[in-house]
Amino acid sequence: MNSQTIPNLLSKRVSLTPHRSAIQFENRTYTFQEIYDLSFQMAGHLQGLGVRKGSYVSVLLKNHIDTVVVLLSLQLLGGIAVILNNRLTAEELVFQIDDSKSMLLITEDSFLEKVEELNALVPIVSKESIRESPYDMPLLVKEIALDDVCTVMYTSGTTGNPKGVLQTYGNHWWSATGSALNLGILEEDCWLCVVPMFHISGYSILMKSIIYGMRMILQQSFDASETIKVIKEEKVTIMSVVTTMLSRVIEELGEDRLSPAFRCMLSGGGPVPLPLLEKCVEKNVPVYQTYGMTETSSQIVTLSPEYSIKKLGSAGKPLFPSQLKIVDTLGNEAGSLESGEIVVKGPNVTPGYLNRDEVMSDGWLNTGDIGYVDEDGFLYVQDRRSDLIISGGENIYPAEIEGVLTSHPDILDAGVIGVEHNEWGQVPAAFVVSKESLLEKEISEFCAKKLAKYKLPKKFYFIEEIPRNASRKLLRRELRKMYEELR
Amino acid sequence: MNSQTIPNLLSKRVSLTPHRSAIQFENRTYTFQEIYDLSFQMAGHLQGLGVRKGSYVSVLLKNHIDTVVVLLSLQLLGGIAVILNNRLTAEELVFQIDDSKSMLLITEDSFLEKVEELNALVPIVSKESIRESPYDMPLLVKEIALDDVCTVMYTSGTTGNPKGVLQTYGNHWWSATGSALNLGILEEDCWLCVVPMFHISGYSILMKSIIYGMRMILQQSFDASETIKVIKEEKVTIMSVVTTMLSRVIEELGEDRLSPAFRCMLSGGGPVPLPLLEKCVEKNVPVYQTYGMTETSSQIVTLSPEYSIKKLGSAGKPLFPSQLKIVDTLGNEAGSLESGEIVVKGPNVTPGYLNRDEVMSDGWLNTGDIGYVDEDGFLYVQDRRSDLIISGGENIYPAEIEGVLTSHPDILDAGVIGVEHNEWGQVPAAFVVSKESLLEKEISEFCAKKLAKYKLPKKFYFIEEIPRNASRKLLRRELRKMYEELR
Repeated sequence: MNSQTIPNLLSKRVSLTPHRSAIQFENRTYTFQEIYDLSFQMAGHLQGLGVRKGSYVSVLLKNHIDTVVVLLSLQLLGGIAVILNNRLTAEELVFQIDDSKSMLLITEDSFLEKVEELNALVPIVSKESIRESPYDMPLLVKEIALDDVCTVMYTSGTTGNPKGVLQTYGNHWWSATGSALNLGILEEDCWLCVVPMFHISGYSILMKSIIYGMRMILQQSFDASETIKVIKEEKVTIMSVVTTMLSRVIEELGEDRLSPAFRCMLSGGGPVPLPLLEKCVEKNVPVYQTYGMTETSSQIVTLSPEYSIKKLGSAGKPLFPSQLKIVDTLGNEAGSLESGEIVVKGPNVTPGYLNRDEVMSDGWLNTGDIGYVDEDGFLYVQDRRSDLIISGGENIYPAEIEGVLTSHPDILDAGVIGVEHNEWGQVPAAFVVSKESLLEKEISEFCAKKLAKYKLPKKFYFIEEIPRNASRKLLRRELRKMYEELR
Repeated sequence: MNSQTIPNLLSKRVSLTPHRSAIQFENRTYTFQEIYDLSFQMAGHLQGLGVRKGSYVSVLLKNHIDTVVVLLSLQLLGGIAVILNNRLTAEELVFQIDDSKSMLLITEDSFLEKVEELNALVPIVSKESIRESPYDMPLLVKEIALDDVCTVMYTSGTTGNPKGVLQTYGNHWWSATGSALNLGILEEDCWLCVVPMFHISGYSILMKSIIYGMRMILQQSFDASETIKVIKEEKVTIMSVVTTMLSRVIEELGEDRLSPAFRCMLSGGGPVPLPLLEKCVEKNVPVYQTYGMTETSSQIVTLSPEYSIKKLGSAGKPLFPSQLKIVDTLGNEAGSLESGEIVVKGPNVTPGYLNRDEVMSDGWLNTGDIGYVDEDGFLYVQDRRSDLIISGGENIYPAEIEGVLTSHPDILDAGVIGVEHNEWGQVPAAFVVSKESLLEKEISEFCAKKLAKYKLPKKFYFIEEIPRNASRKLLRRELRKMYEELR
């Protein structure tokens, strides 16, 4: 049978509630009608630049009202947004633009230097000059199929190159409605978005704004005192955070309190430590801990505040439309309290990766993360993929850094682990076997060309041999032991 | 591709919020855990009686906690509930049970006399004796496909026999979430259900209770003063009504007022007249007018209270996932303010009828109703199918009554129209051409055997000839003229 269809999201929203406040950015509030009009205008220029239904268009933009307009204009045309992490290096950008066969890169003047060398690869237009390009009366997509791909976001797998996660309109829709069934939908809701829109955490807030008809406040970057001020003055009710942000807000809050209307800190990207949680309870800041990833189009498992102390460390239960199981190494479903790989399923789960034919078994996605479910059905994540490093909410895959390190002509072998860091939670540390005596500075500069800044190892250790098992698999546990001895 | 799957609704709800209040009936409140336990128990007995995934099971029950349990236990087993209108005659029941090839009829002792003669057709079990039947450890359906049929409800078409409307799990899901995006979901929500659960209006409240995790108060029948009392004392926030009920509540309310927490009278089954709407505004009772039918799994178009006076008489705009167009007699889309047939589409729209292969064009359902859309996109329904009679919220199809009348050996021809009635809005009036002089009482008794009471013509007119056009099509407009002269 054909995929289910629903109306184009923005067109439908504007037909229902044109005059409601949609997006607030830098002291200006745009209604859904205004957002629609701007997006319609933008769609005309993008069509003039050749964008059609099904075109892949790379987007490299900071959080800004223009970014909202670009992303929604692509939806109006049925174009697929390949949303690029702002912090990637030129080399990393090349891979993702090339892999997605993007026909256009939309960026902004502040990135022009960074993208200069991509000129040969893809036509580039900056948002500042886009309105100078020819205008075509845009052919809007009236109906979308839930199976149609809406966005692509790259994540690095455990091995090799980053993979483009396909996120369909259905994925975003079910994510938004699944979350609504958990948190409710209040008329006065207003969601503060300081997380990047190039991450699913930010993009999913935009989708909720359109689907719920909800006000969203967009900010370019996070600042704890500004956050507290905005929550109070603008009557924010929900905010998406990573632990680092939550911790700074709580610290900055001091003896002050958020407004009573504020109802949810939706926290992703790793568990919230107990002392921080206790401070949140003390200061009456309700925290919903979540577990999710790009592949699940944001949260798939969420813990409500009433359980945050009783079920300390748990990520909660899968949202209504989603399912979860723990699978042991033999592929059998584990009993309660037994550890195994976390496997998830649901209409918010990606159908797969761009240009890869990894097949999911009956819709179940192997996350690679390790955890268990307690006797009441609450999930405890023990290890975000045995090797994943989470630094200030960004996922870092050691394999990617190891690949860069070993591409250096004088490095024979390398291993990377995450080590604790006061500010960022974790940072990468690298163990290197070098051919001749290499300077740390040399390696550092080499990596800086190929890796986004947050991925750069903060410490280097030169050793004789990387610990590997008989089948040459890296023994990261041994590296951790070494680190404990060496530091 | 395969249909999307989600977890079994009741199992999922009980895993998320076992201790929340689910259903309140006759001064007792059942939690989701209790509802689950009762349904699990019931599922074991139904399985003992042979019910399996995909079995069609007819259900003839009044609003009652047991009805909730029977309907949900069928969902647990994956059985398909053929939900029978309590007011049908034995003959009408025979048709629906036979047409659906039901393998079992679940009813209650109070209906045993009525269903006595169905014994040869289908095994019958009354809810009072069901627990005496053998118990089998029930095999629960863990996952449901959105395309799986959940319920069948019969509606009479414009011609001939009633048709079984297939309602999938997806239809119910999208109806519930589409409504949530319009009305919001509040933690304190509580929906009062006095409309029958054998109608989509009642069944859809049960689905919302399970999907939202919301308290629902179930009552066997409507009483205006009881309604007012319950709304106040039990903190009801939403209630589904038909115009007759709304009118009685407003009358009964007098100088009294509903509680401030009460936020929505969801009114279906025909437009609310202006004087009544004005009284509602005066008494601070917010009315959401809707347009919907069994085929759309309840409301598909809804008008919010802020427009109820400004857009008086309008049914509103289609819910977020749904679409609407007006089509003229040539099949072209009509412009704004032009009348034509109302055609709807959406994931809440039935995939079709049982045992019929009427094909929908690209998912669009021809409602047969006539209306137009104004320049702001608001729907005005002008005629509920040119011939449909709505009496106290029940749909009556003249063709069905005409079929019964002309089956009488002494009736040569017959025509039925709806005429105004103070209490019920409309009632059927019949025009009859008889072979010899027949008594009204005779015809009345004849009909009473074959038609539910609410369908019985309240007036009979004996005439010489039924007005028909050249192709023998009944000219109902002429009958209306005759009625105006004769009454």
